[in-house]
Order: sequence, then C-alpha cells, then structure tokens
Amino acid sequence: MPESPIRKLVPFAEGAKKRGVHVHHLNIGQPDIHTPEIALNAVRNYPEKVIAYSHSAGMLSLREKLVDYYRTVNIDISADEIIVGAGASEALLFAFQSIMDPGDEVIIPEPFYANYNGFATNAGINIVPIFSSIETGFALPPIEDFEKNITSKTKAILVCNPNNPTGYLYSKDELETLRLLAKKHDLYLIADEVYREFTYDGKQHFSCMHLKGIENNVILIDSVSKRYSACGVRIGWMVSKNKELMAIAMKFAQARLSPPTFGQIAAEAAVDTPEEYFDEVIKEYIARRNTVVKGINGIKDAYCPNPEGAFYVVAKLPIDDSDRFCQWLLEDFSYENQTVMLAPASGFYSTKGRGKDEVRISYVLNVVDLNKSIAVLDEALKVYPGRTN
Amino acid sequence: MPESPIRKLVPFAEGAKKRGVHVHHLNIGQPDIHTPEIALNAVRNYPEKVIAYSHSAGMLSLREKLVDYYRTVNIDISADEIIVGAGASEALLFAFQSIMDPGDEVIIPEPFYANYNGFATNAGINIVPIFSSIETGFALPPIEDFEKNITSKTKAILVCNPNNPTGYLYSKDELETLRLLAKKHDLYLIADEVYREFTYDGKQHFSCMHLKGIENNVILIDSVSKRYSACGVRIGWMVSKNKELMAIAMKFAQARLSPPTFGQIAAEAAVDTPEEYFDEVIKEYIARRNTVVKGINGIKDAYCPNPEGAFYVVAKLPIDDSDRFCQWLLEDFSYENQTVMLAPASGFYSTKGRGKDEVRISYVLNVVDLNKSIAVLDEALKVYPGRTN
Repeated sequence: MPESPIRKLVPFAEGAKKRGVHVHHLNIGQPDIHTPEIALNAVRNYPEKVIAYSHSAGMLSLREKLVDYYRTVNIDISADEIIVGAGASEALLFAFQSIMDPGDEVIIPEPFYANYNGFATNAGINIVPIFSSIETGFALPPIEDFEKNITSKTKAILVCNPNNPTGYLYSKDELETLRLLAKKHDLYLIADEVYREFTYDGKQHFSCMHLKGIENNVILIDSVSKRYSACGVRIGWMVSKNKELMAIAMKFAQARLSPPTFGQIAAEAAVDTPEEYFDEVIKEYIARRNTVVKGINGIKDAYCPNPEGAFYVVAKLPIDDSDRFCQWLLEDFSYENQTVMLAPASGFYSTKGRGKDEVRISYVLNVVDLNKSIAVLDEALKVYPGRTN
Repeated sequence: MPESPIRKLVPFAEGAKKRGVHVHHLNIGQPDIHTPEIALNAVRNYPEKVIAYSHSAGMLSLREKLVDYYRTVNIDISADEIIVGAGASEALLFAFQSIMDPGDEVIIPEPFYANYNGFATNAGINIVPIFSSIETGFALPPIEDFEKNITSKTKAILVCNPNNPTGYLYSKDELETLRLLAKKHDLYLIADEVYREFTYDGKQHFSCMHLKGIENNVILIDSVSKRYSACGVRIGWMVSKNKELMAIAMKFAQARLSPPTFGQIAAEAAVDTPEEYFDEVIKEYIARRNTVVKGINGIKDAYCPNPEGAFYVVAKLPIDDSDRFCQWLLEDFSYENQTVMLAPASGFYSTKGRGKDEVRISYVLNVVDLNKSIAVLDEALKVYPGRTN
C-alpha cells in the first residue's frame, strides 16, 4: 500500500503549529463550505428506533432520489443501476474489483488523484499512466498515447472530470474521443465525476453517461462528499447500465453488508438542496480560483493554468523538488508567523521523477486567507535554498 | 466473490409475501432491539456545520472512549492501538490485508460466518476450515486438527467468540490452547468478538486480549453493531498491540480516507449506554434462546445444542438438503398462513457437502413470534418431501 506524500508532511505541519506558526492548509480536499441544513436536519429528525442494516446496494429511497437528481443533468438511469458505497472510494474499489482480475491494467492520465493507487493495490491491479502536460493545462493527452499503451491486460480507462488534482474540465470532444477508443478496444470507460457541479466560466459538464452507443462500457463514479460538502457521511456510488457488471459488483457490496445508514439519510435529503446554495458556492469558488491563479502567476518564475472545474490547481514553481520544498515550508520557513501546507505534485504522478517542480493547491480557504497564503509562498520562493532559477 | 446462501432465498421470501404468507425472519443477524437513546440523541444533537472527513483511524474521541470501555472488561489498550472501520467487515478486511499476501491461509473452525468468505476473496487469501461438530455443541476442534493443517502459507487462526453461526462461547481453556498454538507457530490469532456482551447462564466472556505473552500476535475485531443494536451505523474496529502491523493497517485505512462520521458520533455516545439496557437485553435473549432450544428439541428427530452466547443456534433437522428445505419453506409451504425463513447451514461450511441437515436460526424475534415459528417448523417437517427419517 503506497504512502501518500501529503501524509508524510503531517508531522511537519504539527511541528510548525507547535512552534506557534499559523499553517494555511492548501493541501486537502476538505471544503470549508457548510453542509446544507436540509441534509443535517434529515439526520437530526431521523425517526427510526433501530439503526439497521440497509439494502446492500443502498436504501431504495436514496437511489430513487439519485435517479431524480440525474434527470436534472440529463442522465437517464434507474435505481437498480446504482450501487451505493462508503464513499466514492468504496464505489471505485467495487468497480475495479468487478471488471478486473489481479494483474490487469487501467490507463489513467497523470497527474491523477493519489488514492487511485491505493484502490489499485487493494484490487491487485496496475495503473498505466499517460502523461498530461501543464503546458496544455492538463488537457486529454493525444489518443495515440493511450493507444500505444493498450495491452491484452488493459481493461479500462479512468478519467476524473473535472479533475483532481489539475482542475481540468474535459470537453465533450475529449469524451467522444475516449468513447471511440473504448468502443474500438472494448474497454470500460470509468469517469469519476464527484466534482460535476464545480464548473466555472459558464462551462457545462459533459458526463460519461451522455455518451451514446457504449452504454455497457461506461461506469460513473459519484459522491455527495464534494457536491454537498459532506465528505464525512461517506456516501458515494457507482452507476452502470451493464447488468452483468452490476450483478458482480452487488456481490462485493453484499460481502460488506451495507453502506452507512445515517450518511444515506443525509445524502437523500441533500439532493433537495436549493439551487441558490450552489450559486453561492460556485461564485465563491470562482473568486477563490481567480485569486490563486492570478496570485501564482504574479510570482516570479511561477506558472498556473486557469482550470475550469473542481477546486484544485497544479502550479509550476521554480523549485528543485516539491517534496523537499513542501517539507521545508513547514519545517524551516515562516513569514509574519505564517506558512502554507501544499501537496507535492510528485504524489499525483505514477512516473518517477515527474511533478518535481509542481504542487497541488486546493482552494478550500476564503479569499482573504488565500491572498495571505500567496504572499507567504512568494516570500518563501525568494529564500528557498533549492530554488532553480 | 461467493454468493451467500441466504441471498439466494430472498426472491422466494418476496414470493411468499406476495402470496400473502407471513414470513418469520429467523435468517438474519439484525436484532429488533432498540438502539440506545443516548446514541441516537448524540447524532440528533451533533452541532457541527460541516460533516468533514475524520481521522483515518477514527475520531480520537471515539477511540479514547473505546479505551474506557475496554477498561471495564479488563482489557488495557491505548487509542493508537485501535483503527476504526466501516463496520467489523472493513476492520477484518484491513487485518486480512495487513497480515497476509495473496495465496496465504487463515485457519477457521467451521461452520463459520459466511461473510468471512467474501473478505478472504477480497484479500486474495484462502480459508482452511477445521470441522467442529454439533455433537460437542461446536466446541473448539482438537488442536491436532489445527496443527495438521498448518503449512508455510498459514498466517493466522480466526475464531468468532461467541460464535456466529453456532452461538458457542469459547472457554478460557480453549483460548489458552490457541495461544500455545499461535505462539509455537508464530501465527496471528484473530478473534471476532462482536457478540462479547451476549453471554448467558452466568458465563463470562474470555477475550483474546486477556491472553499473556503473545500480545504481538493477537488481533481483536469488534463492533457496535450487535452490542448496541446499531448495525446500520457501520462502525467496527480492529485492536492490536503490534505496532508494525498497525502501521500497515493504517495505510489501508488512509487509502479509503475515513470511517463514517455520524456512525462514529453514535458509537462514541453508545459506550455510555446504562448497564440496565444490557440487563434487559440479556434477559430477553436468554428467554428467546430457551424458547428456541426447547422448541427445536421438542420436534421429532430434531436436535439443537444449548449455546451460551450470541443470538444464533445451529440445529440439526431430519432433512435431505438444507438449501432445498429453506427454499421449500418459502416457496411451497405455509401453516396458518405463516412460514419461516431460515439460513441453510451449508453456507457456513467451507467443506462441500457439510451442513446439509443443519440450519442456522437467529433468535432476533420476540418469544411469541419464536413460538409461532417453532410451531410452523414442526408442521413443515411433518410434510417436507425431503424428510430423511
């Protein structure tokens, strides 16, 4: 089981705090946005006297509510095409285990969400990374790069859309390219769309479920964690129209009995969150993204693309080694008694050596704190001993 | 992933209900006992505005509360010797994955909890069953039977105590025997003690954590599901004093981020459930067990031991095939418009052909319904076409 590069930094962050230094946490995907009241109230008012096992696929009423939700984003599915898990984490693990045998391969554009490594290890499968570049803003790599990495062991392609860690929002055209590839080689196309609602600059999200003619090859991974700022309820799910696949996934679901009941109650109610909640959240995230992108690009020799989704950016900095730099920020640096905790991008690349001059910044803090963080980073880069130019 | 024999019966139970037949569910481990109010209130009054990820090992306040709980049963551990999972299911999976590589073996007395098969498949390991007999009330099999099945691939012995499905409560002497064996061969001794509080006839539970001199080999699996009738909160945990093992298990825990927050809130509060709650629950379960044991033994050619724990019995019936019998009960039989749903014991044996004349009965219904169920079973056995004598 691989160690997360962020986890390794935790003791250093604790050290900084012990020295009285304020640490701005730009390293995590835990939003500071409030969970909708409607979700919290549903749990507060849950009338049952026995907190019993639910259906292994998740409560039917939750799955029916999700069907309603998907209708609002033009996705037409039924309740038996959903299996609810303890977070998208478990749902993706079910998907991996259901479609692959140990030793099989899934192709993923890198940088990618570091926890995919854990799920792959858990399922005994291998991730084959395809390089995507900061120069293109982390757009989908050329399809030839996918094609030349397809072997007899390749079973699936996985994209996270909008992307963690890059914030990149894949276009309809890019999804169509993947559709052709998946169809040609009869591969599964897995799309992790947990950040679906977080798209900016008027851009619309195009879902893998909107693709025509490869319905049996598509697996959608989704969650309430980010959408409703409810990471702790641990409710995610997989969606597929492939009945055979869903029957196999159900056995994995049954083996662990059921997903958490309280979380399902919160998730079901959350679907009724009023539109205004999102309007405000999106407005806030756009302001935050703009702050970070403008801030980073204002730092000498630093570069940050302007991604249109999620709440992350991957930025390029004039540094020798992002792991060392992120540790140094916590261990040896402070400015006006503050420092920042960033995620070294190396942890999001499967190919050794990549991401050494990149960091992931999660803009999960308010604009004031983000501006302070940028100022701290600017000062830090002026004195970092491993600065490259 | 193996199919549970109980799941296969579900469509037939639904069929019976559609025909207007009342089905007494003696097939499940879902108690009808109320979840303690103190646990429900903690969730109702949870003040946080953001339902965030918790610590991957579980909230520190929960783990500290569990340390307090264990002190009351003479088990001395610290909070960092606990990793909380989404139910004992996930905790046991963490344990399997942390101590075994694919292809390794764990020895388990059979009949055993059928879901162990799923966790083993999930971890890519093999279960080696050791036969325990209804003649001895499913006591620990002779230690020679364990010893002759130990190979270079054997990494652990697993017992469920009190046992699901047999209700058998292992004695201190039996645990000491296992201790010697585990020490001699340097094996892990995993004890699933989720039914710890459910012991009858004045018998005391002896925990694997009470064993001296093999502290680094012992793994305790525990849960609030049965203890506080809170199966749906999905909170279980593993306990071990082996620091190296816990460091590996933590990586699996981190890979799935965190256990469910609301469930942890309920679990933490549940530890303060007043003693009287258990006094009443235990009194109720003793009455139920007595009803079932006396009832079964009053049926011609049927036999049921008198187990001292959990809320299950495995009974021997004059039948050709328990899978067929249990299906027939739902599909073709009713008495006064009622029938019973039982778990075929075949599903609890790993060795093919065993358990064909045995069923598991969960006494999770009240005494009145249990008496009705016994009457139904009695009538059914009079007319079942596959009756053996």
